[in-house]
Amino acid sequence: MSETQAPLDPASKSMDELVALCKRRGFVYPASEIYGGLNGFWDYGPLGTALKNNIRDHWWKHMVECPPIGPDGNPVSIVGLDSSIIQNPKTWEASGHVGGFSDPMVDCTETKKRYRADQVEVLIVEGKGKWAFMENQPDTIAKKLKKAGVALDDGERKLLTDLDLSEYATIVAPDTDKPGTLTEPREFNLMFDTTVGAIKSEDNKAYLRPETAQGIFLNYKNVVDTMRVKMPFGIAQIGKSFRNEVTPRNFIFRSREFEQMEMEWFCAPDEALQWYDFWKHERMRWWKTLGIEESNLIFRDHDDDELAHYSNACVDVEYKYPFTAPGYGELEGVAHRGCFDLTQHQTHSKTKMEYFDQPRQLAAKEEGKSKEEINEVSKYIPNVIEPASGLTRAVLVLLCEAFTPDESRASKVYMKFKPKFAPVKAGIFPLVNKDGMPEKALSLYMELREKFTCEYDAKQSIGKRYARMDEIGTPFCFTVDGDTATDDSVTVRHRDTQEQERVNISQVESFLAEKLAD
Amino acid sequence: MSETQAPLDPASKSMDELVALCKRRGFVYPASEIYGGLNGFWDYGPLGTALKNNIRDHWWKHMVECPPIGPDGNPVSIVGLDSSIIQNPKTWEASGHVGGFSDPMVDCTETKKRYRADQVEVLIVEGKGKWAFMENQPDTIAKKLKKAGVALDDGERKLLTDLDLSEYATIVAPDTDKPGTLTEPREFNLMFDTTVGAIKSEDNKAYLRPETAQGIFLNYKNVVDTMRVKMPFGIAQIGKSFRNEVTPRNFIFRSREFEQMEMEWFCAPDEALQWYDFWKHERMRWWKTLGIEESNLIFRDHDDDELAHYSNACVDVEYKYPFTAPGYGELEGVAHRGCFDLTQHQTHSKTKMEYFDQPRQLAAKEEGKSKEEINEVSKYIPNVIEPASGLTRAVLVLLCEAFTPDESRASKVYMKFKPKFAPVKAGIFPLVNKDGMPEKALSLYMELREKFTCEYDAKQSIGKRYARMDEIGTPFCFTVDGDTATDDSVTVRHRDTQEQERVNISQVESFLAEKLAD
Repeated sequence: MSETQAPLDPASKSMDELVALCKRRGFVYPASEIYGGLNGFWDYGPLGTALKNNIRDHWWKHMVECPPIGPDGNPVSIVGLDSSIIQNPKTWEASGHVGGFSDPMVDCTETKKRYRADQVEVLIVEGKGKWAFMENQPDTIAKKLKKAGVALDDGERKLLTDLDLSEYATIVAPDTDKPGTLTEPREFNLMFDTTVGAIKSEDNKAYLRPETAQGIFLNYKNVVDTMRVKMPFGIAQIGKSFRNEVTPRNFIFRSREFEQMEMEWFCAPDEALQWYDFWKHERMRWWKTLGIEESNLIFRDHDDDELAHYSNACVDVEYKYPFTAPGYGELEGVAHRGCFDLTQHQTHSKTKMEYFDQPRQLAAKEEGKSKEEINEVSKYIPNVIEPASGLTRAVLVLLCEAFTPDESRASKVYMKFKPKFAPVKAGIFPLVNKDGMPEKALSLYMELREKFTCEYDAKQSIGKRYARMDEIGTPFCFTVDGDTATDDSVTVRHRDTQEQERVNISQVESFLAEKLAD
Repeated sequence: MSETQAPLDPASKSMDELVALCKRRGFVYPASEIYGGLNGFWDYGPLGTALKNNIRDHWWKHMVECPPIGPDGNPVSIVGLDSSIIQNPKTWEASGHVGGFSDPMVDCTETKKRYRADQVEVLIVEGKGKWAFMENQPDTIAKKLKKAGVALDDGERKLLTDLDLSEYATIVAPDTDKPGTLTEPREFNLMFDTTVGAIKSEDNKAYLRPETAQGIFLNYKNVVDTMRVKMPFGIAQIGKSFRNEVTPRNFIFRSREFEQMEMEWFCAPDEALQWYDFWKHERMRWWKTLGIEESNLIFRDHDDDELAHYSNACVDVEYKYPFTAPGYGELEGVAHRGCFDLTQHQTHSKTKMEYFDQPRQLAAKEEGKSKEEINEVSKYIPNVIEPASGLTRAVLVLLCEAFTPDESRASKVYMKFKPKFAPVKAGIFPLVNKDGMPEKALSLYMELREKFTCEYDAKQSIGKRYARMDEIGTPFCFTVDGDTATDDSVTVRHRDTQEQERVNISQVESFLAEKLAD
């Protein structure tokens, strides 16, 4: 019997094995698989859906229903929203997405493959030539370099976007032998477009939202006018977004259809930096409640040259994915967006976004400030702090985090989810299908299922049932056996240690309730 | 103080007033309102989102986590799924949506208005002419008829689709005076299309799903292969669907973006009719658990000529909406789809959808059946029973059902949600903002908010706070007052009766738990 293992280094986990387990056990299937799939789209199977719902509900509870305690010792104020995926197209002109939400795309005229110029690296070896490659195509470049008698660290590496266009003629693209097959980069807008109404025309063109945030800004006035909110407050939303990625990759990390969890926090401009700091640390605290190893999470402050022109500060919460390890990759961004979005929508819609802050007005009056000064502090377009993360990316993080190879087990691998987030909380088994065991186990299942997601399973040997529960990450299995009839106890098997103990059948519910608490 | 009122006749409820309340109190806002809206799209405000989530969770719990008890006394087996909105376009060729999912559309060349020919009625008065009108445009037709000296029940009424094309030249369209302005009906496909990848071509065309059901059929094999399910079993899904409706109408009843709750029940062909009957009654039972008046719900069996060619039976659960009363309108369809969908996907994808039913094989062997007979009962493409309803339509039903005008109240109207579905379960108030009342009320709120969606409110007079809670349908308000300091009791005010009683502060949690049980 093995002990609880020390946390594994993410770099040692195989994405291929994880993707295979996800399909084999009903977490994530390739979308439209029977029709050969569709690049960048995934379907969430029964267990993936349960895992995703668990994270969704945890975010919603701690963002909307029980928002965190603010600096004044009272809970902050946040309301929920669920806005349309398709909005009036003017939304995306105002937000800048129609003009600017694009990636530089290059095509290879030889292979017909398409790349993002800002992701392609070029190895330049003086006198020997230039080779273009993608970091995630190690084989291609290795083969080519070997042929040319060059080592990967021989020359200088530059992003394609940092090269002069005149140099394109000398670059050998992936999977080709002769240089000069890459086209100049063209800007490609990432929004999916469609037509609302029967006539296909520019007037009727609409877009699938590339982020949920703009639906919140569109409703800022509605919420202020109808919800008795006072500054500062937040509006939170969970929902699907769509990006026509040039190169979707890394499983569900970058897919074309994905789910976001975004909150826009509105506050007085002179308090924005302090709220930025509050949300930065609050979000990190929240990610840790998912049971993620502390060493796998870091902050990465954006450099000044990474910031959007309107943004005063931005920090990413990053996770050490198996495909980024020993480095980290984006999980959530917390951005100080200033008053950019509301000002843009004010300009484009002619709707006044100014907020009148009565408590500040009264305070300034009492302090004997001038009329001008009073106006300045009490009338403003709010600043916005935006913690924005991907729900489907959070699913990926919990899948990566839980994935634990273990050669000592029948299943060779188990999913070490924090019990609260496990798709199935408990397996309820009769040891064998006789002597009244199925009836007792079924009755326990019927009692527990009202409160916890449980599975009753009476098929195959008990070892095989444990193995499957290990693979889907069920933290506890309760087995009715021969002794149950005499002492009313069942065995409980712990997923991580594989240890078993006996617990009275009447105590199973409180046992589970305790283990599943936050 | 008024008594609980008898249920109101839906016909007496004004949709205009309901829509106004929904906007005023943050249930439903028109989408993109600051940009003049977008016809057929709606955003769910903080309270509408909470109401929708409550219904969503109730469906998921009683469909997936605690599915109903089947005819054998044990729970039936259903798993959840969350498939992509965008799938490989071959999906919609196989399902028949590319070829057949369309409405007959007529345009008026004079007014540029567009109608569905199957919804336009024509009043034919011999010797006086023909007038086209929509049932939901009573003013237009009344005006025109008056001008012509004709009463609404003077002539014969026919659907435009039942008229001969040669008669179109003599029809006077809505808002016009001269006949012959309507074009011939053209079939208009209701699927929104888009392009996946950078090249706009027929090859890269894709569709937004018009129903969640096909995502389930696409994954039928995956679920059978990975989830240890045995016939009969179900796959359930909640998610957005999109239909480019020619004439979206009746608030959120028929919108272009909406949310569905669909379950596909797979079973042996010879058991399908009995399962059809099971699900028909189970679904009606479920709708009643939402607190809907029994007299507002009916079954409507589809006539033979309404059935799709592959369907053996279909029944709608209908609700008496204010805009259909005294008639009923669709809420859920329970359809016997035979083996149509799986067979279509088998043909188009070349993936075998046949199921091997081992228990049936063993039983047939034991009965001494011939090899042919054994094969016949144990190898089959499953039949499908589909209970399919709209989540957003369920929101509309609960809004209509709850809307209760009451002139005796300050709010003039209250929302009589069944407590379990109310967006806010309890308001927690200090009577006045002094004498330690806010601290006590806040502490009660902090305790309750972990378990129930509550609101703490200390603004304005207590009467105004009750009035707002009436309008948003909060069933209970707890007020800390002068007596609380001495006897630890608070008043609880009941929304429906407006009666107040005192309850010990330590009993509030159990009081609420009891009232909010199923």
